[in-house]
Amino acid sequence: MKTRAAVAIQAGKPLEIMDVDLEGPRDGEVLVEIMATGICHTDEFTLSGADPEGMFPAILGHEGAGIVREVGKGVTSLQAGDHVIPLYTPECRECDYCLHPKTNLCQAIRTTQGQGVMPDGTSRFSIKGKPVLHYMGTSTFSNFTVVPEIALAKVNKAAPFDKICYIGCGVTTGIGAVINTAKAEPGCNAVVFGLGGIGLNVIQGLRMIGANMIVGVDMNNSKKEWGEKFGMTHFVNPSEVDGDLVGHLVELTNGGADYSFECIGNTTVMRQALECAHKGWGESIIIGVAGAGQEISTRPFQLVTGRSWRGTAFGGARGRTDVPKIVDWYMQGKIDIDPLITHTLPLEDINKGFDLMHAGESIRSVVIY
Amino acid sequence: MKTRAAVAIQAGKPLEIMDVDLEGPRDGEVLVEIMATGICHTDEFTLSGADPEGMFPAILGHEGAGIVREVGKGVTSLQAGDHVIPLYTPECRECDYCLHPKTNLCQAIRTTQGQGVMPDGTSRFSIKGKPVLHYMGTSTFSNFTVVPEIALAKVNKAAPFDKICYIGCGVTTGIGAVINTAKAEPGCNAVVFGLGGIGLNVIQGLRMIGANMIVGVDMNNSKKEWGEKFGMTHFVNPSEVDGDLVGHLVELTNGGADYSFECIGNTTVMRQALECAHKGWGESIIIGVAGAGQEISTRPFQLVTGRSWRGTAFGGARGRTDVPKIVDWYMQGKIDIDPLITHTLPLEDINKGFDLMHAGESIRSVVIY
Repeated sequence: MKTRAAVAIQAGKPLEIMDVDLEGPRDGEVLVEIMATGICHTDEFTLSGADPEGMFPAILGHEGAGIVREVGKGVTSLQAGDHVIPLYTPECRECDYCLHPKTNLCQAIRTTQGQGVMPDGTSRFSIKGKPVLHYMGTSTFSNFTVVPEIALAKVNKAAPFDKICYIGCGVTTGIGAVINTAKAEPGCNAVVFGLGGIGLNVIQGLRMIGANMIVGVDMNNSKKEWGEKFGMTHFVNPSEVDGDLVGHLVELTNGGADYSFECIGNTTVMRQALECAHKGWGESIIIGVAGAGQEISTRPFQLVTGRSWRGTAFGGARGRTDVPKIVDWYMQGKIDIDPLITHTLPLEDINKGFDLMHAGESIRSVVIY
Repeated sequence: MKTRAAVAIQAGKPLEIMDVDLEGPRDGEVLVEIMATGICHTDEFTLSGADPEGMFPAILGHEGAGIVREVGKGVTSLQAGDHVIPLYTPECRECDYCLHPKTNLCQAIRTTQGQGVMPDGTSRFSIKGKPVLHYMGTSTFSNFTVVPEIALAKVNKAAPFDKICYIGCGVTTGIGAVINTAKAEPGCNAVVFGLGGIGLNVIQGLRMIGANMIVGVDMNNSKKEWGEKFGMTHFVNPSEVDGDLVGHLVELTNGGADYSFECIGNTTVMRQALECAHKGWGESIIIGVAGAGQEISTRPFQLVTGRSWRGTAFGGARGRTDVPKIVDWYMQGKIDIDPLITHTLPLEDINKGFDLMHAGESIRSVVIY
């Protein structure tokens, strides 16, 4: 079949909208009609050429929602008509990682996913007979895509695609960091560094679990209103703090954060996030992705006196299990998504979504097919 | 009263054995006759002058065991004749730290303890009317010492002082890191860096809880026999590994350590310990104390992919609660201490104990009064 897609022909160039050939689902695979997809910094990271593992030509996009149109042989958990969110972190429920209680990093198809192909080693996308690569196992910048069954979360059919697509990455990453990775408790004090899409979702995760103090830290004062909309109780602009930011945050939180979250990808901020954690028990969680080769550092005394330094990917969520719950929470009004979707675009205008991101004008732009 | 003591008159000089004046216990304090005391690297660190917080003249020693001889007003949990182990990490059971489930770092008397005085701000030791400082709240290099009630663990009277004194620091630090900080599970794979007194106690802690693979790492091949005596299953000498030590350890442990322990105080080794932890769930615990100003570093990717970096002090043990249990485990044969006490000395020869430590000839030297 043919599908309309935005193709990344090469690094550093805008996406090109065109018709692409798409082969149907093989064993264990599912054909999905993508109804909406977010545009995330990770897509931009790869498109820019900064991602050392980026490969081209490829169909990017990893934050989608859609409808199952056809299932391949052996697919048992899904059928045509099901509403789904593709998962760049799958959940096979069989590998050593899925069976370990402390991780969500399913390894079942990691190698082929990293190579831009399906688990059997081939691509379903092609142009004039030449293969085009998949991306993160999802390729949601195509109206139709083929995804392994283990990488699809079946969700509530009443949920609007143009909002829940964001649960495919940003929402789950932020809320999951709070509930799965930190396992933050009601009454805790937390500090969140960086009030972009991830940071705001961390904040609403903290609000949902009943945190006491939710301190947002951002250099941009316009983020104060955003933070407050999602539950932030205190705002700190580091450029307006006299003296040491860490000392200021420790004082503000009466001894330090029970949990701190780095949502930027800045290694200097990662250190500040660790060091503003409470002596004895404070945990600092890295969510942001740092540039290639960059390192974090601190004095080991910070750890010996009881702080711990951790990280999270996809919010520690097991996608097939946890993503449907987060969709339900959205439908029940426990979490907000609508205000975060600041722009919607047709596929033809997808490059404008990247422009809005560069300009810092959007929290999230969503392409609606 | 008078007491015989080894006094640290100034940094870098041998201890001087002399009679010291000792005032009796005030409110909430207890007079203890020390029967035996270990000589630990931390005493050496302070005596050498390397400890920026070291103060002189002082009576060092923090790894003792003895008998209560007199209690001050208000002391309710102890009476004359009780056998006790002094605790450099007290347990008041009332401060925010004692009441928090995730830490053992009781802060009740931290400030005065750090200043070398009792909680009322004065010292009980003096020479010719001039005060001599306490050390770590314990000062076990004195035959008699005064200690706050909250810093004494009451232990089994049948236990031999010259062995259980080691539970006052090294044994609890090593075993506690396994059971309190890591909470390591039966069947886990672990890597232990540095097979000195702490490392060997980590190893026997791992044996006790039923670890599967217990890998010891040390530059000194003579430590292999020591490790095996305490339960080590595999020995690695980094100087005999072809290529990358971390890669070797990851391969040996079939993907990485569930738990790794740094028992040296070397920041390069701390990084290796983190990076040999298993992707997804490996936890690395820093026990060793690094030199002033030294820093640890790694790529944040190590944490984002599921490793966590933590530290421990006094093995995460709450002394009054946990130390008596460890004494019982020793009496029940669950853990070994006897082979670790390689030398015993009278107080007059205490400086020889430091010489043995410098020469690497002892695991632990114990002074018997």
